[in-house]
Amino acid sequence: MSEDRKQAAYFGAAPPFPISRAVRAGDFVITCAMGDRVFTFDEALYDEHGGVVSTGARLQEVTFGEEVHGTFKAVQESLALAGCTLADVVDCQVWLRDARDFYEFNRIFADYFEDNQPVRSVFRTDFMFDFRVEIKVTAYKPLYSTGL
Amino acid sequence: MSEDRKQAAYFGAAPPFPISRAVRAGDFVITCAMGDRVFTFDEALYDEHGGVVSTGARLQEVTFGEEVHGTFKAVQESLALAGCTLADVVDCQVWLRDARDFYEFNRIFADYFEDNQPVRSVFRTDFMFDFRVEIKVTAYKPLYSTGL
Amino acid sequence: MSEDRKQAAYFGAAPPFPISRAVRAGDFVITCAMGDRVFTFDEALYDEHGGVVSTGARLQEVTFGEEVHGTFKAVQESLALAGCTLADVVDCQVWLRDARDFYEFNRIFADYFEDNQPVRSVFRTDFMFDFRVEIKVTAYKPLYSTGL
Repeated sequence: MSEDRKQAAYFGAAPPFPISRAVRAGDFVITCAMGDRVFTFDEALYDEHGGVVSTGARLQEVTFGEEVHGTFKAVQESLALAGCTLADVVDCQVWLRDARDFYEFNRIFADYFEDNQPVRSVFRTDFMFDFRVEIKVTAYKPLYSTGL
Repeated sequence: MSEDRKQAAYFGAAPPFPISRAVRAGDFVITCAMGDRVFTFDEALYDEHGGVVSTGARLQEVTFGEEVHGTFKAVQESLALAGCTLADVVDCQVWLRDARDFYEFNRIFADYFEDNQPVRSVFRTDFMFDFRVEIKVTAYKPLYSTGL
Repeated sequence: MSEDRKQAAYFGAAPPFPISRAVRAGDFVITCAMGDRVFTFDEALYDEHGGVVSTGARLQEVTFGEEVHGTFKAVQESLALAGCTLADVVDCQVWLRDARDFYEFNRIFADYFEDNQPVRSVFRTDFMFDFRVEIKVTAYKPLYSTGL
């Protein structure tokens, strides 16, 4: 275990593209900024200039509330790869496509954190993809308690 | 104290809403993204669709400079809850409503860091609330030096 | 060395302005959000209201691809000040001026990470300066392996 602490561990990486879904570094686990599905470059639609215009038009198919739940599910899955849950989250970064979704987002957010109260940021932003919400979290789970 | 290191400590949480003003995780303390006042959902004004349109129209009442000072005061208060000061800050994320405020922001920023030189990011963004500036910091203060 | 762990170390600071290019805090090294050149306030152009409008019109002089390479070079230089390389990076935050540059950015990004797969976020944003891309990274390199 002492060896584990000397280097980062990457979870959910899909080589050759060098991104992980989650990484453990010391006592911390950090996830990617995630929407409600894992993006694969093959699924994307590109314009004539090579720009990404869509990952497949999911935007119309679900309600915003459903998308938030799907996004938390993706975050939970990423954390699970590294042996963590939302109860370990200490910092939560949130981005919304439309500021008017903030009220509903907050209602749903409250259901996912019963025992912990992470710090948080929420900003409106322009996404690369068909997401209305993206979430990136930092979890704190000291190695000696994970059994890894 | 060794027990403290095994789990995060949350400061300034206001249950039932699961957000803290600051969290300690190991040797780090992280704050929320903060404006010059602590947001409470009861104070907010909502439009007919439930969207937050205002936290109470503070935008017109103070100068930008006053708002920056007020924001640093809020950050200092949040850090203090976790036993830290701005001198412990290693990373400082800043968001501005108007890029033209960057020059004045920098002048004021310099007055708050005399002994330390944190890394920093500054971006223009769309806020959820009536803020012209928000700041989120990460502080580094090893537990054995805090007396906690 | 045990003394080193008790406080942060700042690299590339240029007093009196209190920002560093990189900071070590415990086992982590964090960089500034960086474009392809280090900004100095003297070089900036200001409008009549004191707003920064340009750092010197670099935007037209290089291709986007060249600017990405220049940005990674600046990040590598900042990491090197703290004894790190891109191979130590665990988290990579990216901002683009134009979402249509995302495809090309990803192609170049893949060339810089051969052994590690950091988590990542990429958002379109409004920069303070003449950048089409900015990058901020967090590296994990336990002190006992650096020889510092």
